[in-house]
Amino acid sequence: MPTLRNYTYDEITVGQTATYSKLIEERDVQLFAAVSGDVNPVHLDPAFAATTQFESCIAHGMLSGAVISAAIAMELPGPGTIYLGQSMRFRLPVRLDDTITVNLEVIDKKDKRGFVTLDCNVFNQDDQLVVTGTAEVMAPREKLVIERPCLPAVRIGD
Amino acid sequence: MPTLRNYTYDEITVGQTATYSKLIEERDVQLFAAVSGDVNPVHLDPAFAATTQFESCIAHGMLSGAVISAAIAMELPGPGTIYLGQSMRFRLPVRLDDTITVNLEVIDKKDKRGFVTLDCNVFNQDDQLVVTGTAEVMAPREKLVIERPCLPAVRIGD
Repeated sequence: MPTLRNYTYDEITVGQTATYSKLIEERDVQLFAAVSGDVNPVHLDPAFAATTQFESCIAHGMLSGAVISAAIAMELPGPGTIYLGQSMRFRLPVRLDDTITVNLEVIDKKDKRGFVTLDCNVFNQDDQLVVTGTAEVMAPREKLVIERPCLPAVRIGD
Repeated sequence: MPTLRNYTYDEITVGQTATYSKLIEERDVQLFAAVSGDVNPVHLDPAFAATTQFESCIAHGMLSGAVISAAIAMELPGPGTIYLGQSMRFRLPVRLDDTITVNLEVIDKKDKRGFVTLDCNVFNQDDQLVVTGTAEVMAPREKLVIERPCLPAVRIGD
């Protein structure tokens, strides 16, 4: 059975890294529009997007934020992490069918409260840096090895 | 026909405000799990969540980020905005069936490149401040009044 496991505060070292990748498909952009309410046509309407400087549909910037947050929650530190803050710079657009990879690196630990700071760099499949940022989290104190829930099944369209 | 309209850089004034609200339902948390890949049981499994300090399922922190990004893209400045950066502090959890309201306020403009800085404060229905942050965007130069696309129809479950 697939499991989810975390790194506790004590197990985490400065310099530790993790990666998390996701293919950004049209359905992801549609789902992000549905869940956020951002139905701007630059994301959803190829004919409109062709009239913009982007020339084709681009993903919502914050969809990369969602993938960063998943990297932190699923990989490093993983389950039990409390998300305290996130900064992001959106450097290049993410396009449909891009595969983005989040590279996390622990850059600081604060023993007293269990705070961990992570550099977050997101690259596309051409190794272009599309988003940079920094996350601050409270790392779990307790080791968790839990059953990995399935992704909710979602269908788009009537 | 419902339309989407923006505020151009020249129309935007320091102190200008906008609000954007969203009810966070269980389906939104499931959709956010599906689109991000973050299937942590604190978001999806009431029995597991009951064992945590949160005591019941909470929304993903970055789901509030998604709603902030929609406020910017849909309301102020609206369509044509280019998202440059976002910082967020997650102060309190958002729970299922909370209604969150994003309050945006323009706090700075940089004429040379059309950059606009917005304070982003997110409150729940009890007027508790759940997320604070700052956004930097490039405001549109061109007025847009466009047909408002429908939300993509999404169904959850097999």
